[in-house]
Amino acid sequence: MPIQSASVEQVAIDVAQKPDRVPWRFTGAAIMKLTQGQTYLAIPGPSVMPEAVLRAMHRAAPNIYEGELIEMTHGLLPDLKKIAGTRHDVAIYIGNGHAVWEASLANVIAEGDRVLMPATGAFGHGWREVAAGLGAECEVIDFGRRCPMDPAKVAEALAADKSHSIKAVLAVHVDTSTSVRNDIAALRAAIDATGHPALLMVDCIASLGCDRFEMDAWGADVMIAASQKGLMVPPGMAFVFFNEKAAARRAEMPRVSRYWDWAPRANPEAYYQLFCGTAPTHHLYGLRASLDMILDEGLEQVWQRHDVLARAIWAACDAWSAEGPLELNIADEAHRSRAVTSLRIGKEHGTRLRRWCQDQAGVTLGIGLGMATEDDPQSDGFFRFGHMGHVNAQMIMGLLASVQTGLIALDIPHGSGAIDAAARVIAEA
Amino acid sequence: MPIQSASVEQVAIDVAQKPDRVPWRFTGAAIMKLTQGQTYLAIPGPSVMPEAVLRAMHRAAPNIYEGELIEMTHGLLPDLKKIAGTRHDVAIYIGNGHAVWEASLANVIAEGDRVLMPATGAFGHGWREVAAGLGAECEVIDFGRRCPMDPAKVAEALAADKSHSIKAVLAVHVDTSTSVRNDIAALRAAIDATGHPALLMVDCIASLGCDRFEMDAWGADVMIAASQKGLMVPPGMAFVFFNEKAAARRAEMPRVSRYWDWAPRANPEAYYQLFCGTAPTHHLYGLRASLDMILDEGLEQVWQRHDVLARAIWAACDAWSAEGPLELNIADEAHRSRAVTSLRIGKEHGTRLRRWCQDQAGVTLGIGLGMATEDDPQSDGFFRFGHMGHVNAQMIMGLLASVQTGLIALDIPHGSGAIDAAARVIAEA
Amino acid sequence: MPIQSASVEQVAIDVAQKPDRVPWRFTGAAIMKLTQGQTYLAIPGPSVMPEAVLRAMHRAAPNIYEGELIEMTHGLLPDLKKIAGTRHDVAIYIGNGHAVWEASLANVIAEGDRVLMPATGAFGHGWREVAAGLGAECEVIDFGRRCPMDPAKVAEALAADKSHSIKAVLAVHVDTSTSVRNDIAALRAAIDATGHPALLMVDCIASLGCDRFEMDAWGADVMIAASQKGLMVPPGMAFVFFNEKAAARRAEMPRVSRYWDWAPRANPEAYYQLFCGTAPTHHLYGLRASLDMILDEGLEQVWQRHDVLARAIWAACDAWSAEGPLELNIADEAHRSRAVTSLRIGKEHGTRLRRWCQDQAGVTLGIGLGMATEDDPQSDGFFRFGHMGHVNAQMIMGLLASVQTGLIALDIPHGSGAIDAAARVIAEA
Amino acid sequence: MPIQSASVEQVAIDVAQKPDRVPWRFTGAAIMKLTQGQTYLAIPGPSVMPEAVLRAMHRAAPNIYEGELIEMTHGLLPDLKKIAGTRHDVAIYIGNGHAVWEASLANVIAEGDRVLMPATGAFGHGWREVAAGLGAECEVIDFGRRCPMDPAKVAEALAADKSHSIKAVLAVHVDTSTSVRNDIAALRAAIDATGHPALLMVDCIASLGCDRFEMDAWGADVMIAASQKGLMVPPGMAFVFFNEKAAARRAEMPRVSRYWDWAPRANPEAYYQLFCGTAPTHHLYGLRASLDMILDEGLEQVWQRHDVLARAIWAACDAWSAEGPLELNIADEAHRSRAVTSLRIGKEHGTRLRRWCQDQAGVTLGIGLGMATEDDPQSDGFFRFGHMGHVNAQMIMGLLASVQTGLIALDIPHGSGAIDAAARVIAEA
Repeated sequence: MPIQSASVEQVAIDVAQKPDRVPWRFTGAAIMKLTQGQTYLAIPGPSVMPEAVLRAMHRAAPNIYEGELIEMTHGLLPDLKKIAGTRHDVAIYIGNGHAVWEASLANVIAEGDRVLMPATGAFGHGWREVAAGLGAECEVIDFGRRCPMDPAKVAEALAADKSHSIKAVLAVHVDTSTSVRNDIAALRAAIDATGHPALLMVDCIASLGCDRFEMDAWGADVMIAASQKGLMVPPGMAFVFFNEKAAARRAEMPRVSRYWDWAPRANPEAYYQLFCGTAPTHHLYGLRASLDMILDEGLEQVWQRHDVLARAIWAACDAWSAEGPLELNIADEAHRSRAVTSLRIGKEHGTRLRRWCQDQAGVTLGIGLGMATEDDPQSDGFFRFGHMGHVNAQMIMGLLASVQTGLIALDIPHGSGAIDAAARVIAEA
Repeated sequence: MPIQSASVEQVAIDVAQKPDRVPWRFTGAAIMKLTQGQTYLAIPGPSVMPEAVLRAMHRAAPNIYEGELIEMTHGLLPDLKKIAGTRHDVAIYIGNGHAVWEASLANVIAEGDRVLMPATGAFGHGWREVAAGLGAECEVIDFGRRCPMDPAKVAEALAADKSHSIKAVLAVHVDTSTSVRNDIAALRAAIDATGHPALLMVDCIASLGCDRFEMDAWGADVMIAASQKGLMVPPGMAFVFFNEKAAARRAEMPRVSRYWDWAPRANPEAYYQLFCGTAPTHHLYGLRASLDMILDEGLEQVWQRHDVLARAIWAACDAWSAEGPLELNIADEAHRSRAVTSLRIGKEHGTRLRRWCQDQAGVTLGIGLGMATEDDPQSDGFFRFGHMGHVNAQMIMGLLASVQTGLIALDIPHGSGAIDAAARVIAEA
Repeated sequence: MPIQSASVEQVAIDVAQKPDRVPWRFTGAAIMKLTQGQTYLAIPGPSVMPEAVLRAMHRAAPNIYEGELIEMTHGLLPDLKKIAGTRHDVAIYIGNGHAVWEASLANVIAEGDRVLMPATGAFGHGWREVAAGLGAECEVIDFGRRCPMDPAKVAEALAADKSHSIKAVLAVHVDTSTSVRNDIAALRAAIDATGHPALLMVDCIASLGCDRFEMDAWGADVMIAASQKGLMVPPGMAFVFFNEKAAARRAEMPRVSRYWDWAPRANPEAYYQLFCGTAPTHHLYGLRASLDMILDEGLEQVWQRHDVLARAIWAACDAWSAEGPLELNIADEAHRSRAVTSLRIGKEHGTRLRRWCQDQAGVTLGIGLGMATEDDPQSDGFFRFGHMGHVNAQMIMGLLASVQTGLIALDIPHGSGAIDAAARVIAEA
Repeated sequence: MPIQSASVEQVAIDVAQKPDRVPWRFTGAAIMKLTQGQTYLAIPGPSVMPEAVLRAMHRAAPNIYEGELIEMTHGLLPDLKKIAGTRHDVAIYIGNGHAVWEASLANVIAEGDRVLMPATGAFGHGWREVAAGLGAECEVIDFGRRCPMDPAKVAEALAADKSHSIKAVLAVHVDTSTSVRNDIAALRAAIDATGHPALLMVDCIASLGCDRFEMDAWGADVMIAASQKGLMVPPGMAFVFFNEKAAARRAEMPRVSRYWDWAPRANPEAYYQLFCGTAPTHHLYGLRASLDMILDEGLEQVWQRHDVLARAIWAACDAWSAEGPLELNIADEAHRSRAVTSLRIGKEHGTRLRRWCQDQAGVTLGIGLGMATEDDPQSDGFFRFGHMGHVNAQMIMGLLASVQTGLIALDIPHGSGAIDAAARVIAEA
């Protein structure tokens, strides 16, 4: 509420009596918010949208039959493939990550087919459920929540499948819940070593444009991604990349639904087939702006930026961990995502810390996901940092220094020197 | 190109010799564009987006786990139902019209089921193909491209289906290609008269928020719509409304894929189930702005506005038709859409007129769709006006007066008095 | 208000009794608005802002000491000069038209100096008052409200000033109130013929970027303009162009206030001098976008577009005038502005017609300004069309067809064929 | 540049040989930018603009003669007065701070009048120059660059002016160059003690909406402010508040120029007089959004937020200062601004640190201003933090942690514990 006339007068008297010569302090009951400013959404997606993307989406509807939209769209496809590291095909879907979980499977997995899921977090289990929803039989190898998959175990399972009834291995590159990063090239090598013909399908939703990924070089047959993480576009668009082996498998399918069918999307005879109907016009303009930013910066440079910033975060976390309850979910740096970091801090601290950061500092951390235990059914002891896409040094240092402030404010024990440790990583970059 | 120094001097000499006393005219070769200004996209979707919608979408990503987005989303559902005229359920999909063609069918039509399609344009045939893609057997009653369906013929087909193997009648309320408007209440009455239990599924993609539609009152079991027409939001979001009869049918389905399943979307236990994964955050903000506009204006008033403007368009078209080749595709006013108007003008004129309007006046008309004949394989003799959503008198009068200008410019014979005829409809409103 | 549950039921009963087979019409008391859509502000400034300009202004604040803003600003100056047709100097002011009325005078007119004002409308008188406010003695030659100035009369007044006490002739190129366009080259010639050394200062606020203007070629010593008309940028920035003769006069001034002084603005040693303090950052980005549009189109083409559209308006007005009270304020086409058109229609009709257009059609016309008479103290019998800047054929045809609709709706007598007459001008362009 | 086909193949070979099992590091020559993300402009104005303000300005031009703009504008005046702590008058100018320096003086200081300037930084001297430009005679008491004015010295000078030829004392509340904050209430008391009738004119450009200021209670007769600092609106609008004593003085002035005259602006008979011509339409919408934010938060709360964040900054600076060259310009906390902080770090470090922060971290610090010495003619040894307006804890912690990173990266000696010190201030708030 604004100043009341009364209070103006009141202040007048006060000031007359003791003018503002000593540092002025507040004593009243009014509640101040230290969050009134640019807030920062540091969750693992949707990520921070660049103004250039939002501005590109702030425009009148274009003609969807002729003209600039059509040309612009065709330019998107090669650029998407560059970012995926593939020379093969891409189908764009209006949808989120779940949509392309289903779309990718619908093209190559028929009812009754078997798939193998080496799970390393909640999103692996989520994809498996979608497969089950299509009538597939799913074999899960559960690697828990704190370590990457072991390619040898996957190879073992495939080797045991003499009849080659397993049609696909579903691998999540980075599981957003655990922040584990799996080694896709090693998985490919392990599959190849068995001679098993199963497709390697990879979920890069949380990693594309953040962590290095090279679809062709690493031997993924199908790769899926979405707009709202490393690609920095609002949720609502997702992608299925597929190679010739996958295309051949699709050709053998008894039936693929019209909407999920990737064939006309990837090789359309008419523009509307690209999206099976009306194009997602505004998202396409946003994507164009985002791809321009990524390619202007350079994909290697984008990956390197994410690497430095991730290591800065890990350095701070290592320092905090030296004392007190905070702990990185993935102990081995070699298996950590460079886009998201999952943390453990104990049931009594996690949600409290998240709330403090949001309500007192203006930075929103990601909730723990898929980490529930009997003791902690709401995953209150977990939280996550998203550091994907449009992130730079001042944002990450602000994130870390805000968490440092929260740890102090809430009196949560923690090791010292976290900010300096992070600063040194950036300073040396 | 800007003025050259040379030309400045040249002009100086010219002016000194004969100062600017006579009306100044251009003689040079430079090409002037009369389109440099606010352009107007008068195609039948995506429709003109209100600035309030675009502004609402120009914002930072929100938290998708807690806070204002969650509350706002829950407020959308009752408002969507108001606009659909239903007290039943709605499932929101990230997708376009084709997506909800498939989504709606996937919940109630199993492989091998039969559906009945009384087709009155290209979009009826499109929906039928999607049904076929899901493994349904489709019976088509084709009513051609210039008239509405005859409910009696549909009743006949149902009556012949003694075994009740037809699970659904797929009806398009307004077919965007032909601009025919079908009488859904009459269709319902005809179905009921046969005692056949088939679901009545209605595509209102082109009509919702433009032409009166009352889902419950008219007896539709399933209704589908999309964001980019009467709802004035960019393409990328679509809706399936369904009643208890349809829900019961879904409960009997052997299997519904996770992504298409409307049950958790309509009655979610957790927020993310509303969209089967990440929410379409920015579209939701846009939809909120759009629903606010519609409900502030009043749904009856929105319908009435579309009615007056449609009649103004028809009056102009009737005047033009009095002489020359232009003709309304749907002769009987009682069967015309109030959101889109399809026109016939002859192969030599249609595309030419569209191009003139776009390149000389700044208004883009819709292409003819699904109207190809042997003589006119590219539908060059057809065009359409979109007049859905965010349209008012000055826009429609500008559209009509621009077409009038094009007819004059291209020397296409036409009856006189079109603008006055349209003006009179508006003046009397 | 949205549909009430009750009304849904009510409709259900109604529809059951008489399904929607006959054209559906409204009878109720609810008020429909035919204005719900893109509204069009057709006043003589601020003009319609292109989305590209607004988008360019929707951005974070830039550094004002280093970097891209500084470079961008320097690029604006030559482009502004191209549009003014000058090789001399320009000073940019944060301000409106009144600001540069005062700024321009403050640099060359000292207290007690005499100026000569050949007035052709309210804005001439306005500028004169500003001169008086600076202590100048103003001699007015009033040419009324319906015709241009007569250069011979100006020459006469100068010839009578043997002592050369008149320091400047203040000429308004286009007076926005009357829509008269004065012949500046002819005025220059007339002044030159007298040998009088008075500066020729020209107000191009309403004409720059619309009507041809060539500062150097036509011999203006000082020219002023503002952002919100032909330059299509929101109000808040204005310009003073001046040549060496004017600069010499400024050098002789006893004192010029720091803020109005054009010398450091035009030839700054430091960036902040360009604007005498903090730069108008967002307006500068808007101006860049606007200048890009103008120069991409071509200045000659911009002028030609305004010419064609103005002639279309005049043709419609001529047709309307053939019968009834509507009349163009400036009878002779040779003296009409191509940016604004003033109209007379009689006290009982003007305000009514404006209100109808705004409230029923969504187009806002300009009020009559400076046209008050004893009979019509509120200028109710006058209105104006603004047709400056970002205007194209469909906008102007929409404007005219909306007025046509208003004339019909309000039963105001008018000649027929107005829209066709306008259409023919555009068709022949 | 995007990935080359060649590099894809190259990577394929590399990966086949040594799959991605060890932490992946960059070795190449490509240049990574850690600035690609949300950049933060931490200069002392223009300040960070809230998205709500920018969004409010992204709109079509309104009618400037009738309707919502007019009503909205009238609502701004009382809210501006609340923020200024006055019940008197306010005149709005299209302009920057320099404009209201001149506007305020032009209403009360005639040619030849004397003014007294107790200067505490560059902006004091700037205002004095503007006074000189109006023909005033200026007496300066220079308090240097590191401490506030001494009211007793001002009183002395006034007491010596027996003839009351000094018409005004020009005081800068916060001088943005030095970041000193002067005690206006004490100055008023000192002036009053002398019985001298000079007006007290106060420049609050850098402080309004950041540091507590109460115009009426503290006894300022005239107060000036601008839009681009605590008011969070782009540069281009400024304000002169004045009380009855100042109004009386204006009434005695021999002449005030039309544009600067505050009388019709503050008490207009017609809307256009509010701005002496065309209104700054888009800035007005932005100001409305900004005032809503300030008043929703509460002015006391806004001040308190600035206080906490300023003390966090000072705590960090104190820690840094404990070792090495960094030093706060104003030693005594009681005299520091809560909107801007000036720092000294030595010629070899200042510009280097600023550049590092901007080019490596994405945060832009303010340059040193008005601090030049013979040794350091470019003020390279100085820099400033702006912390005004739309600032919260995560922004300030990000700023401080980025500077910490820069100090480490550039090997500039500094005391330890800065971030923790700042965090403790915020944690205790």
